Order: sequence, then C-alpha cells, then structure tokens
Amino acid sequence: MNEHYRPTPGTPMEDLDTPCLVIDMDDLDNNMDVIAETYEGRTAKLRGHSKNHKTPAIAHRQIRRGGTVGGVCAAKVSEAEVMVHGGIPSVFITSEIVEPMKIDRLCSLADQAEMLVACDQAANARDISKAATARGVEVGVVIELETGLRRCGVREIDQGVALAKEIASLPGVRFRGVMSHQVIGDMPDREDRVVEANRTIKGVIDLKDAIEGEGIPMDIVSTGETWSYDVAAEIPGVTEIQGGSYLMMETHYSYMTEFHYAGKILTTIISTPRPGVAIGDAGVRAVSSLSGMPTVFDRPGVSVESMDSDHAVFKLESGASLKVGDQVLLIPAQQDAMVSRWDRFVGLRKGKVEVVWDILARGCHN
Amino acid sequence: MNEHYRPTPGTPMEDLDTPCLVIDMDDLDNNMDVIAETYEGRTAKLRGHSKNHKTPAIAHRQIRRGGTVGGVCAAKVSEAEVMVHGGIPSVFITSEIVEPMKIDRLCSLADQAEMLVACDQAANARDISKAATARGVEVGVVIELETGLRRCGVREIDQGVALAKEIASLPGVRFRGVMSHQVIGDMPDREDRVVEANRTIKGVIDLKDAIEGEGIPMDIVSTGETWSYDVAAEIPGVTEIQGGSYLMMETHYSYMTEFHYAGKILTTIISTPRPGVAIGDAGVRAVSSLSGMPTVFDRPGVSVESMDSDHAVFKLESGASLKVGDQVLLIPAQQDAMVSRWDRFVGLRKGKVEVVWDILARGCHN
Repeated sequence: MNEHYRPTPGTPMEDLDTPCLVIDMDDLDNNMDVIAETYEGRTAKLRGHSKNHKTPAIAHRQIRRGGTVGGVCAAKVSEAEVMVHGGIPSVFITSEIVEPMKIDRLCSLADQAEMLVACDQAANARDISKAATARGVEVGVVIELETGLRRCGVREIDQGVALAKEIASLPGVRFRGVMSHQVIGDMPDREDRVVEANRTIKGVIDLKDAIEGEGIPMDIVSTGETWSYDVAAEIPGVTEIQGGSYLMMETHYSYMTEFHYAGKILTTIISTPRPGVAIGDAGVRAVSSLSGMPTVFDRPGVSVESMDSDHAVFKLESGASLKVGDQVLLIPAQQDAMVSRWDRFVGLRKGKVEVVWDILARGCHN
Repeated sequence: MNEHYRPTPGTPMEDLDTPCLVIDMDDLDNNMDVIAETYEGRTAKLRGHSKNHKTPAIAHRQIRRGGTVGGVCAAKVSEAEVMVHGGIPSVFITSEIVEPMKIDRLCSLADQAEMLVACDQAANARDISKAATARGVEVGVVIELETGLRRCGVREIDQGVALAKEIASLPGVRFRGVMSHQVIGDMPDREDRVVEANRTIKGVIDLKDAIEGEGIPMDIVSTGETWSYDVAAEIPGVTEIQGGSYLMMETHYSYMTEFHYAGKILTTIISTPRPGVAIGDAGVRAVSSLSGMPTVFDRPGVSVESMDSDHAVFKLESGASLKVGDQVLLIPAQQDAMVSRWDRFVGLRKGKVEVVWDILARGCHN
C-alpha cells in the first residue's frame, strides 16, 4: 500500500485505493464475541496469537471484548516487543529463543511485562536463567511437548520431567507450565475435532501430571488452535488456548461457520481481455497463495483461476459479468501469511471506513 | 525484521540477527555484469523490473553497471513513485492503470520523469489523455499484446492497430510502442528457449509491423523475461527486455548457470528435537513457499522438509549435522514473492556486511 495512503473515517468502500486489506468490523466483533461467550465461566481462556494480526490495537480490543487470559502469544521477540511497547501486559513467545542477542531482548521485555517463553532444551533454560539473573528480572518458562506439529518440543514424558526439574532449580526463570500444538486434516466434523483434540492434548496433560507428581507446581497448560478452540476448553487441566485464525478467518476453516470472514482483500478490475475473463489488481504478493487460491466474496459465478505477483485472473461463468473499474473482495485460503505483507488494516462497518489500524509488528521476522 | 536493526558495515555474517535477507555482493555484481556484457553493442537493452528488488539503490547500481535503457519497469503506481522519487529518470509501468486516482498519480510522476504505461483499452487511453492534458504533461503509452501470459493485453493485430490509431490521435499521450510477455515450462534447454521466445515474440513484432504500416511510428518494442534475456535480444525489432529474477536469482531458474544465487535468507537453528531433524527460525512468512520449498545453500545432506509461518523443518541425511545456534542459508524457489516481505537487504562481501539497502518500495501494492 502507498506509504501515505490512509483513508479518513466515513470513506465509502467504493472510493478506497486498491488493493486494500479490509476488515468487516461486524464480522470481527462477531468472532471476538464467539470467543467471549465460549470461555465465559470456563477455567480455560484464550491467549490470542498476535502473529495473526500483528496489531496491538486489535489485541487490546480482543482482550477488552472478553474470554481471554488478558495477554497474547507472539511468534518472535520483535513481535513481542511491539506488543509490550503497545501496552499488552503479558506475552508468551511460543517459540524457543536461543541466540544471546534475542535472549537479552527477551529479558529486557521481562522488566516491562510478564514474559513467558517456550523451551525444549536444558542448555537454553540455563542461558535464559543466566541472562535474566544478570538483569535482575524473571522470565516464565513453559516446556513445549511435541504432539503432532512435528516441529520443536520434547518428545517423552521423562525428558519433560527432567527439564522441568532443571528449570525449577534455576534462578531468574520461573517454571510456569507446559504447552503443545496439533494439526488436523481438512474439513473435520465436530466429532473428528473432539477425538483428535483429546488424543493429541492427552500428551501434555500426562506431562503436567508427571511434573506435578514430582512436586513441581505449574499454572499454565497452553494448547489448542482455532480448530479445537471449543473442544480443548472442555479438557480438564487446560488453562490457555492459542487461537489466531478465527479472528480474520480464512476458507481453510470454512467448516467453522460460527466465525465470519472478516479479513479480505479489495481489488479492482483493470482489464477484461477476453470473454469470460477479468484481471484484478491484486496478486500473490498482496493476497498469498498459501493453501490455495482465494475465494471471491458475494459474486456468484466468479472465481480466481490463477494469480501472478501482482494480478489475479478471474474466471466468469456464463451469466456473471465484471467490467473495468469494478471492485471484487477476496477471502484468503489462509490469512496468516497475508497480514504481514500490509502496513495497515482498513476497518469497514456497513461499507464505510470506521478505523485504520497500523500493523505495527509487520515484518517482525526476528 | 526488527524495525531498528541495521548491522554496521564490517559485521561478520555469524553475528547477524536472523532471519535476515542477505545478498552476496560478488554474486549480485556477477549477475549485473552478465547483463552488461550480453547487451553491449546490441540494439536491445535491459529495462530491469523493479518489482523484483523494490530498491532505488539497486536500480541505480544496475543502470550504472551497464546494458540497460537507463530506466526501470514498475508493477504499480506506488512502486513507480518510489523509483521516480529515488531519482530513476524513466519508469515503465507494465500494468494497465485504470482508476482515476491512480491515473492522476501517474500524470503527477510524468512531470518529474519519463513515464510509460501499458494499455489494452481505448477508454483507458482516453482517460489518461484527459488527465495528462489537464495537467499539461505527456504520458508515453505502450500497447500490451497477450502472447502467452493469459493476463491483460489485446489479442488481435487489428485490435492493436485500431488502439494505436486512437492513442496517436489523442493529446497528452504519446504512442511509444508495443509490449508482450511470455512463460516457459520448467528446465528448458537453450534450444527450447530460442524456439519458444521466437514463437511468442513473433506476435508483438507482427503488431509492430502492422502499426508502422499504417504510418504510425514507435520507438519501443518491450518483451522478454529472465529466461529469454539473451534470445529476445537477438530478435530484430526488440528494443527492451523486461528482466528481473536474474538479479537475485532463484532455484526456479537453476538452469541459467551464468547467473549466481545472490539473494538468500539467513536462518538460525533453534531446536534439534529428534534425530535427523533441525528447526530453523525462518518460515513461509519470511521466505515464501511459491514454486516450492527453498534449497539449502552449501550444506550437503541438509534439505527443507516443510515450513510453517515462522519456522523451517530441516531434514538431515546420515552424516549431516546441525546444532542449536548454527546458521543456514536458504535459496528461494522464487524470489519475487519474498522481497516485498522485508524492510532491507543486507549486502555481504566475503561474509562481511558491505551495505544495507532499505527496500523503499516494500509493500507498494497499489
């Protein structure tokens, strides 16, 4: 987006410069309300993942609206910095932080907010302990267990218990609990989600029991995703759910109809070169093609055939029509990869600009 | 990348914060030199595509090093703004610009530099003519012919001739010539490239001949891509080649061994959770997965098995090893989609920082 383009409140969607990353505010509020209602009266609460929006203003809105632990997850130290500097009081970095420079930055944040970090190695816990002690701060450490994501994490209960003992013995760090992540296949029904969440989350509950059995207390069992946000909350022992995609939504989660498609890319038709084809001004660079082509919102008979870096090729079935200058809204297949490409969200209510939010953690890859 | 992270010249690669978008300066200079040598003494010259680097400093270096028309291509008006404001004297926007607000911005640029724009519709030419006349500027218009990209462009010679006549009759615009684009399948040999370039570029030469046959002069025939940079330059009538990917390179063009892999992502191992597996701190968000997984540079037996948003999963064959804290360089399968995700390039010569370039047109989707 043009660095200086910032539409004023009240601007109608038809007048927006495109492509543009828009949020339907009614849909966003709906998605936040589903979370608030789901977790009301429950032990487990949401710790929304800020990698999905990278925007402190949205994190604050999410926390105010309810159903959360009052903090967020972050994927990177730089993302956590933006959240802490933006006033979020508790941030859980759900990745291992191993480089000395990054550990120092983590400790610096621990002086300003409650900081939690994932850990799967004793050497790493000792490095964090040393840096935190030198700075006179305390960093909360959460042991990651591998339960189906095939990424980081300890693999065995014994490994986790030994690591918990080590962490509990170190100064400057506080052992806070355990975390795990899982994936599920496409288009599961509710029963699949219940079975799969219980099967995979069982591991982290077993680890919790084993560590507590050694007399080491914890207050965090963090697990779950958008696909298991409701199921994980019913599993005894779970205290936090790491949900993110539900907020803007994506066609990948189309089976979760309680969440609405809030985030979309607004594009303009720039050419109608041949019958049945129209070209839009947004491509892979703006939309992302991860998990497949985007879906066209509310225009029957129009679909995205392909995208290159900066264009989309729309296919029109007979009866559908698009002319040069028309606007088309795209729903991404996967929104996570898209948000970080933009400098700001334009929030629309009933088709008019209500708010413009700077994506302050955009580009925070470090 | 952390908004404020800017390594000082002389910093060794081992001390860089990761993930980091690095350029090997020897490789970059090699790639620019291949272009300078290829086009020396030829009519056709390169008009490098700035969408591939989005950085005026790199465009200036490319122009100074030789073999170019002295200007660049741009995909978007906002990208053209950054190039013009960065001192590039001639910019060709290779897409149709149809929205009134964008046409006004295009005309404003024509007051500061030579501006060319692609066109495939008479109504659009009239809109540009009106806006340019009102501002007292001249915009160069180039007719796009569709020759295999299946995107924008006129499809028939007659259509192109009629459009050329219309453009030539309008005030405020100057008819400058014709352009076309093509694609080729994976891993062609030199003979495939010659055959396919000649076959597809023939159309735009035919259109040129037909328009000139009507007594309408032109000075630009713009066509070709990285895969045909040498072949297109041998086709009589071609004046400009639109190359971009050759500059940083990507494994998608691995068969063009005269170009070196200059642009890479530096990542650090944060976990070695199980035998034969290591986890890196850069994922799809930083690298892009377009055209497939990245290739690991100069580490035999190590490959990227998968990526999620912020992590890469490395697979190690027996004999290969990686430990926590090790750095790994990734070569993207396709670099175009990657560059716009970063705020700056870190240029390394012999493993030490030589220069840091801000990617000023990053996020210029409009």
